[in-house]
Amino acid sequence: MPALSPLAPAGFPELKPIAGVRLAAYAAGVRYTGRNDVMLAELAPGTTIAGVLTQSTTPGAPVDWCRACLPGGSVRAIVVNSGNANVFTGRTGREVCERTAAATAQLFGCSPREVFISSTGVIGEPPPADKIVNALPNIVPLLDAAAWEPAARAIMTTDTFPKGATATATIDGTTVRINGFAKGSGMIAPDMATMLSYIFTDAALPATVLQPLLKAAADRSFNCVTVDGDTSTSDTLLLCATGQAKNTAIASANDPRLADFRRALADVTVDLAQQLARDGEGAEKFVTIEVTGAENDRAARRIGLSIANSPLVKTAIAAGDANWGRIVMAVGKAGEKAERDRLSISVGGIQIAAEGGPVPGYREGPVSEHMNGREIRIAVDLGLGSGHATVWTCDLTHGYIDINGSYRS
Amino acid sequence: MPALSPLAPAGFPELKPIAGVRLAAYAAGVRYTGRNDVMLAELAPGTTIAGVLTQSTTPGAPVDWCRACLPGGSVRAIVVNSGNANVFTGRTGREVCERTAAATAQLFGCSPREVFISSTGVIGEPPPADKIVNALPNIVPLLDAAAWEPAARAIMTTDTFPKGATATATIDGTTVRINGFAKGSGMIAPDMATMLSYIFTDAALPATVLQPLLKAAADRSFNCVTVDGDTSTSDTLLLCATGQAKNTAIASANDPRLADFRRALADVTVDLAQQLARDGEGAEKFVTIEVTGAENDRAARRIGLSIANSPLVKTAIAAGDANWGRIVMAVGKAGEKAERDRLSISVGGIQIAAEGGPVPGYREGPVSEHMNGREIRIAVDLGLGSGHATVWTCDLTHGYIDINGSYRS
Repeated sequence: MPALSPLAPAGFPELKPIAGVRLAAYAAGVRYTGRNDVMLAELAPGTTIAGVLTQSTTPGAPVDWCRACLPGGSVRAIVVNSGNANVFTGRTGREVCERTAAATAQLFGCSPREVFISSTGVIGEPPPADKIVNALPNIVPLLDAAAWEPAARAIMTTDTFPKGATATATIDGTTVRINGFAKGSGMIAPDMATMLSYIFTDAALPATVLQPLLKAAADRSFNCVTVDGDTSTSDTLLLCATGQAKNTAIASANDPRLADFRRALADVTVDLAQQLARDGEGAEKFVTIEVTGAENDRAARRIGLSIANSPLVKTAIAAGDANWGRIVMAVGKAGEKAERDRLSISVGGIQIAAEGGPVPGYREGPVSEHMNGREIRIAVDLGLGSGHATVWTCDLTHGYIDINGSYRS
Repeated sequence: MPALSPLAPAGFPELKPIAGVRLAAYAAGVRYTGRNDVMLAELAPGTTIAGVLTQSTTPGAPVDWCRACLPGGSVRAIVVNSGNANVFTGRTGREVCERTAAATAQLFGCSPREVFISSTGVIGEPPPADKIVNALPNIVPLLDAAAWEPAARAIMTTDTFPKGATATATIDGTTVRINGFAKGSGMIAPDMATMLSYIFTDAALPATVLQPLLKAAADRSFNCVTVDGDTSTSDTLLLCATGQAKNTAIASANDPRLADFRRALADVTVDLAQQLARDGEGAEKFVTIEVTGAENDRAARRIGLSIANSPLVKTAIAAGDANWGRIVMAVGKAGEKAERDRLSISVGGIQIAAEGGPVPGYREGPVSEHMNGREIRIAVDLGLGSGHATVWTCDLTHGYIDINGSYRS
C-alpha cells in the first residue's frame, strides 16, 4: 500500500445527509482482505439520474450496463465493487451485471434497469459474482444517510485517500445540496468522466435536465485532469437527484434559475477532479496548467493536456528543473494552431518566454524556487484568440513506476 | 553519462564509403567538453536531397532553414551540432543558421541554400554561433570518406550508442549503396521523422523521386517508433543521393525498377528506427507491437502507438508483469474502430485473449517468462479488416525518470 499522497487534503470533508440517499460499505472479499470493497447506494423512489461514461471502445461490462440503463433516467440503487474491473471478461462479465442487478432489484422492489453498476480493479479476470450477490442482503441493513466516507473508501484501488466534496446552491429560492465522491489514481485521462464518481443532490430535476448539466460540468472538470494519459475502460460519472428539496419545477438545462446550481456542480466536480490529480500514482506535486489565447476552448484544452501528459514535462517538474523548453515542445506537438513567435510562457507567475524566445533579463532562480514547491502553476498564452482552459495533473516520479510495476502482485 | 543500453547492438556496423560523401566530426565546445559536437558532411556537386521534418508547430530554427532549402533539391553540405537545439531562440536562432550556411557555402563554393543545418540539445538557450562558425575551417581538412562512426557519435545527446545501418540494392542492374546514421533517445515520438537521421546513397535519383520514396520509408520506420510520445521540435530526416553509381535515369518514384532500392531504403530506415527504441532513455526491453485486422493501415498504426505510448503498458513490461488488461485499455483509448468481442491478443506468440475474454485454459506462466526477457513481442488482431502496422518501443523504467530529471544539469 503506497504511503499517503503528500498532496492529500487535511481530511475527508463533512458531507451532510441528502434526503433520499443512504449508503453502505462492506467487505465482500472480492480481491482485498481486511477492507471494504463493495459500496451500495440506495436512492428513494422518484430519483432521476444522468451519467457520463468512458469513450473507450473496450469498455467494461458495467459500463455497457449503465449505458443501457441511462435512457430510463431513473435510479434506485448503485452497486460498486473494487478489486476487479469486470473488463474483457466476455459473456461471464455480462452475466455478473445481470445477476447483480436482479438481486438488488429484488431487495429494493424496483426494476433491474434502475440498478447502476460499476467495477474497478484488475482487467481480464472474471469477477466473483457469488461474493457480490451473496453480500447484498448483508449490506442493506447497514445503509446509513451519514456513511459518505466509508462509501468513498470502499471504491478505492491504488488511491491513498478517499475523495469527497460538497456544495449548496439555491434554485429559485430553495436551498439544495450536492455531495459527491470519487476514486482514481492511475489510468486517469480525459475523453470521458474519469474513473468512478458518484454525485448526489436533493434537487428536483428531470433526467433530461441533469444530463446536459453533468456533461458540461464533466468537460470542465474530470475531462481536464490527467495522471498518465491512459483512458480507463471503466470511467463512470453518475449524478442522482432525489427531488426531496422540492424546488420549483425546471424543464430546461438552460433555465437561468439553474445558474447557482451549475456553479455548485462545477465546484464539486472540479474539487473531485483536482483530488484525482493530487492522488495521482506517485504524485509529489500538483500542477495547474492555464492555457489562454488559443483559437478556441477545445484547442486550449488539447494544448493543456499535451503539456500535462508529456513525460518530459512531468519528469522535469518532478526534478524541480525549470526546463521550460519542454513546455514549448508539448505545445508544438499538440496538433492545434500555435505560432512560435506569439507564444508566451510563465511558471509560478514569472514570465519566461515571449515572442519566440526567452524574455530579456530572464533569471532562472525564482522559477526554480517555485518548481521546487508542491503546487506548480504553468501559464501558456497562444496570442491567437480567446480560447482558454485549465488542466490539472501531477508530476511523474519513481513512485509511478514502482506502483505500476507491482499493482497486480 | 548513462551506462550503455542493454539493448545496444554488438557494435557500429561497417559502413563502406559512398562516392561523393565525406564526413568529419569536431569538438567545438558547443556545450560538452571532451567530445565531438559538430558533424560536417560534404556532398559532391550534383547531389540531390529529400527531407522529412518535424510536424511540430514550434520547430527549431534549423528545421525552418531546412524546410526553406528543400524545394531546391540540391545539397553540398550538412552541418549538425549537438548540445544546443537552437529552438525557441527568436531572431538570434535564425541568424545563427544564416551565418552557419553562409560560412559553409563560402568554404565549398556553393549557395547557402545548399547547406542543410540541424541542431539538437537544450531548448531555449541561444546557441554559440561563433564557436560553430569558427570551427568550420578547422573541420574541412578532416573530411574523410570513412568517418561514419565519428559522424554518428558527434550528433549524440543522451544516446548511449551511435546508430548506423547500411544496405545495397540494384537499380536496373547497377548496384547502389545506402548508408545512414541517426541519433535519438528521448523526445521520440512519431508524426514526423524522429530526431536526427542522415542517409546517403550513390544512386542517381532526382529530388522529385527521392522525396516520395523517403516519405514512404519514414512512415513505416521512424514514424512507427516511440520512446515517450514527446514529439521533438528538431526532428529531421535527410536523404542525399550523389548519383555517382551512374544507374539508369529514373523519372518516377513508382518506377518498378526502384523496387529493390525501396526495399533497401526500408531496411536502413527500419534498422535505424529500431535502434532509437533500443536506446530509449532508461530502456531495459525492446518491444515490437504488431497490429493486424484493423480497419486500415493508419488505424493499425494509431492503435499500435496507443499501446506503445501507454505508461501503464510500458511499466508493466518493465516489471515483467503479464498484465494484458492494460493492452485492452490502450486499444480502447486509441480512438480507432475496435470491437471488444472481436479483439484477440498474443504476447510472445502465446494467445491470451479472444472474443472479448481470456482464452479457455490460459496460463500466465509462459507469458510471464517471455515478459521477463529482453525482446517483447505483442500482437493484436482487431478482426475487422486488413489494416496492419508494426510499431517499436521500449519499456518505461526508473532510468527514464533519472535521466530526464537531470538532463540539463
